[in-house]
Amino acid sequence: MFEALEVGRTIKRKAFQDAALPLRRELLQLQFALQERDFPVLIIVSGVEGAGKGSVVHRLNAWMDPRLIETQAFWDHSDEEETRPYFWRFWRALPVRGRIGIFFGSWYTRPIIQAASGSLSDAELSQELNQILDMERMLVADGALIIKLWFHLPADIAAERVREDRLRELTESHLEHPDDALFSTRYEELARVSERAIRATDGGHAPWHLIEATDENYRDLTAVQTVLQSLKDRLNDGHDGERITPNINLGDTNQPTLLDRLPSDAKLTGDDYKQQLSTLQQRLESLAWQARKARTGCIAVFEGWDAAGKGSAIRRVTEAIDPRLFQLHQFAAPSDEERAHHYLWRFWRQLGRDGSFTLFDRSWYGRVLVERVEGFASEVEWLRAYSEINRFEEQLFEHGLVVLKFWLHISAEEQLARFRAREETPHKRHKITEEDWRNREKRNEYALAVNDMVVHTSTADCPWTLVPGNDKRYARIEILKTFCDALDERLNG
Amino acid sequence: MFEALEVGRTIKRKAFQDAALPLRRELLQLQFALQERDFPVLIIVSGVEGAGKGSVVHRLNAWMDPRLIETQAFWDHSDEEETRPYFWRFWRALPVRGRIGIFFGSWYTRPIIQAASGSLSDAELSQELNQILDMERMLVADGALIIKLWFHLPADIAAERVREDRLRELTESHLEHPDDALFSTRYEELARVSERAIRATDGGHAPWHLIEATDENYRDLTAVQTVLQSLKDRLNDGHDGERITPNINLGDTNQPTLLDRLPSDAKLTGDDYKQQLSTLQQRLESLAWQARKARTGCIAVFEGWDAAGKGSAIRRVTEAIDPRLFQLHQFAAPSDEERAHHYLWRFWRQLGRDGSFTLFDRSWYGRVLVERVEGFASEVEWLRAYSEINRFEEQLFEHGLVVLKFWLHISAEEQLARFRAREETPHKRHKITEEDWRNREKRNEYALAVNDMVVHTSTADCPWTLVPGNDKRYARIEILKTFCDALDERLNG
Repeated sequence: MFEALEVGRTIKRKAFQDAALPLRRELLQLQFALQERDFPVLIIVSGVEGAGKGSVVHRLNAWMDPRLIETQAFWDHSDEEETRPYFWRFWRALPVRGRIGIFFGSWYTRPIIQAASGSLSDAELSQELNQILDMERMLVADGALIIKLWFHLPADIAAERVREDRLRELTESHLEHPDDALFSTRYEELARVSERAIRATDGGHAPWHLIEATDENYRDLTAVQTVLQSLKDRLNDGHDGERITPNINLGDTNQPTLLDRLPSDAKLTGDDYKQQLSTLQQRLESLAWQARKARTGCIAVFEGWDAAGKGSAIRRVTEAIDPRLFQLHQFAAPSDEERAHHYLWRFWRQLGRDGSFTLFDRSWYGRVLVERVEGFASEVEWLRAYSEINRFEEQLFEHGLVVLKFWLHISAEEQLARFRAREETPHKRHKITEEDWRNREKRNEYALAVNDMVVHTSTADCPWTLVPGNDKRYARIEILKTFCDALDERLNG
Repeated sequence: MFEALEVGRTIKRKAFQDAALPLRRELLQLQFALQERDFPVLIIVSGVEGAGKGSVVHRLNAWMDPRLIETQAFWDHSDEEETRPYFWRFWRALPVRGRIGIFFGSWYTRPIIQAASGSLSDAELSQELNQILDMERMLVADGALIIKLWFHLPADIAAERVREDRLRELTESHLEHPDDALFSTRYEELARVSERAIRATDGGHAPWHLIEATDENYRDLTAVQTVLQSLKDRLNDGHDGERITPNINLGDTNQPTLLDRLPSDAKLTGDDYKQQLSTLQQRLESLAWQARKARTGCIAVFEGWDAAGKGSAIRRVTEAIDPRLFQLHQFAAPSDEERAHHYLWRFWRQLGRDGSFTLFDRSWYGRVLVERVEGFASEVEWLRAYSEINRFEEQLFEHGLVVLKFWLHISAEEQLARFRAREETPHKRHKITEEDWRNREKRNEYALAVNDMVVHTSTADCPWTLVPGNDKRYARIEILKTFCDALDERLNG
C-alpha cells in the first residue's frame, strides 16, 4: 500500500506560492459557508512520525480562519480521561455543527502504537478498529464530514527526520514526544499495523487520503487541496444529514407486546415492604462504598410510563447511596449547545468517573421512544439508534461499568387512576399536564416502541429489567434488588 | 464563638419524626417554586470532622427531590483541576439558575486545613478568605442564594466520633478520608482557624449558620429548617437579582478619552513590517514552546473597534504558535446553558491548562462595553463588573498565567473608509452588517466605555495595551512585540 507513496512527488517553490493565495481565499469562503450549515467537519491527521503532521496542522490553521477551527492534540492524558471509557476524550472534543475540528492524534493513535509494540493482539486490534469504524459511521450518519489524512515517509527518510527533530528539540527547547523512541525503532511494525488500520477503516463513509510527505510543498498543498475538495463537494451536495430512505415494516400497534406479559397483580404488603426496603437500602449503601473502593462505576437508566412512579423509585435508590457517590441527571429538551452535537453527546458528557454512580432519569432511549412516536427523529434516525446505543453501552461495559436499565410499567387502568388522583390532590396537580394526557392516547404506539427497544437493546451485558409497577412498593423493591444483585455479582461474584 | 455550640441542644426522636413529614412536603414545594425562578441556590456544608456532615447532606438529598439537587464532593482532585486556578473547580460545579447545588467540602476546606497545618501564614489565609468573600459576593450580586452551614462538636466528642468512624470504615469498607489524621490530632488549631474563617466571611451577603452537632436529631432538623427558611425568605421576597440602585455620574460623552491620545499616524513600511513580522513570529513560536516546557500558561484578550483588524492581528499571533499549544475562542451571544450561569462562567469554562495559550476574541469585557452601551446589562451590573473582572484576572495572574489585553484602536475616519471598502469588495461584503453601522453611531459612548474600562481594569499585573491601528502592519507588530516581551520577561526575566 505504501509503495505508491514513495514515488518522489514534488512541487516547486514557485508553483506552491502561486497556488497558495487562491487556495486560501477559497478555503475561507468555504469556512464561512460551512458556518450556515448543519453539520460538523472533522479532520483527522495521522501518519508516520517525522512526516510533518504538525506543520500540516499549522498550515491548515494559518490558511483558514482560526476562529472557526479547533485543534485537539490529545497530548496530555488527564486522569479525568483515564477514568472514563476511551472514547469519552474524543466525544468531549468533537466540533459543533458548522465548525471544523482538527484531531491531531486521534482514536487511531493508541491502538496503532499498542499493536506495534506488541501489547495488543491482532484480535484486540480488530476489535478496536471496529469500534473506530462504528464511531465514524455514527458521526457520518448524523451528518458529519470526516476527512482522514495519512502522511507517509519511506523508512530511511523517516529515521533521518526523527533524528533532525530530536536535534532541533534540544536546541530550540521543543518538547520531546513520548512516543519518539517507539516510532524510530519500530518503523516496520508500525507500517504493518498502520496499513491494517487504514485498510480496515477505509470506507465510503470516510475514506483515507494517503499523502506522500517527503516533499514539504507537495505534502502541504495536497493536504490543503484534499480538505478543500472534500469540503466543497459536501457543501455543494446540499444534504446535511442522512441520505438513505429506509424500507421498513413498522409493526402493528394492535398486537400484544412484551409489556402485556408482565404480571399486573404483583404486590407487597406494607410490613414486607418496610423490612425489605431497609435491608436492601443498607446493602446498597455498603455496595456503593465497596464499588468506590474498587473503582467500579455504575450507570443506571430509568424509563417508564408517565405516573409509573419513576421519581419515587429513583429516590429509594438515591436515599441509600451517599450523595458523594452518585450523580443523578434528568433529561428533557436538549440545550442549544447539546443540539449542536450528535444526540449521544449530552449523555457522554455526563458520565461520572470510575467508582461513582451515574443515574439517568430518562436517557438516550428517548431517541427510540418519544422521538420515534412523536416524529422528532426520522425513521432512519431512530432505527439506526438501536445499534448506536448498543455500541455505546458496549463501551461502558467494556470499560468496567455496571450497566442497568429499568422500564417501570403500569397498566393503562392504573395510569388513568393515578392521573385522576393527581388532579384531585392540590400539591400533586403540577405533576399532571396536557402532555401526559396526549401521551396516554398514544399508548399503543409507545408500547410497540418499548417492545422494539427491549428486543433490540436488551443484551447479556446490559440487560433491560421490566418492572411491574402497579404496586409501587413491589416495583421499588424489584429495582433495589436488581441493583444490589448486579453490583454484588460484579464486586464479589 | 464555638462555646455557644456546646450547650447540649437535643431533639427527641418522637419530635423529630413529627416534624419530618411536613418539612419534607414544604421543601419539595419550595424546590418546585425555585425551578421557575431565575437564581441558583448554593448550600455549603462545613464543620468539624466527625460532626456528621455526610449524614446531613444525605438527609437533604433524601428529603428533597434529588433530580433538582446536585451534590459536589470535591473529593478526588483531578490533574485537570490542579493545572488551573483554584476556583476553576468550583466554577465548573456551580448550580444553574432554578437549581440547588450542595458543596460538600468547598472553597473553605483547603485554606482552613493548610492554615491549621501551618503551611499557610496568617497573611496568606487572610488573602484566601478575601478571595472567597469576593466570590460569594459576586454570586450573590448575580442573584444566587448561598446558605452556609457549619457543624460543631466539642473536642472530646469529635475525637470519639472520628475513632468510631475509623472503626466503621475498617469493618464496613468505607473509604478513609485523607484528612482524618489531621482532623483528629489538630482539633485546637482547626478550631482557631475555622473561627477566623467564619468571622471573616460572615456577612449579610451570605451569613453562616452555626449548628451544634452533638445530637443527630437536633443537627439534622436544624440544618433542614435553616435551608427551608432561607429558601422561603428568598422565594417570597420576589427579587431575582441585585437590589441596590446605584447613584452614579456616568460621564460626558463629549469629553476626550484615552483613545484620543493614541497617535493616528503610527505606521510601518512594507519592508520593515515583513522583516519584523518574521523575526517576532519566530520568537513567539519559540517562546510558546518554552512556556509549554515551563508549564506557564497565557491568557490574551482581543478587543477593538469594528473593522480595526482584530481578526487579522489574531491570525498573525496564531500563525506563529503551534496549534497544539493554543485555543482560540470567539464570543458572541451566550448559549442557553451559559445564560443560566453567572456571566463569567462561560469564560472560566474555556480556560486552558497550564502551559497552553488561551486566546479570547472578545471576552468578559463585553460586560462593560457592548452590554453597557446597549443596555443589556443594568448600570449596577456593569459597574460591579470592574471589580469582578479585576478579581478574576488577579486569580489568573496569581496562578502563574501571563495575562495580556489588547484594545485595537482606529480613528472614526479610518473606520468609515474600511466600512466602505468592505461594501465594495464582494468577498468582504459579509463582514459588514447593519449592526456595524449602528455601533458606529454610538462611537462616543463606546469610547467613553473603553476609557472607563481601561481606567478601572488596567493593572500592573494585567495591563491593557492600547494599540494604534490605523496602519494594520504597525498594529500587528505592536501586538506581537508586546506578546513576546511579556512572555520573555516571565520566562527568562
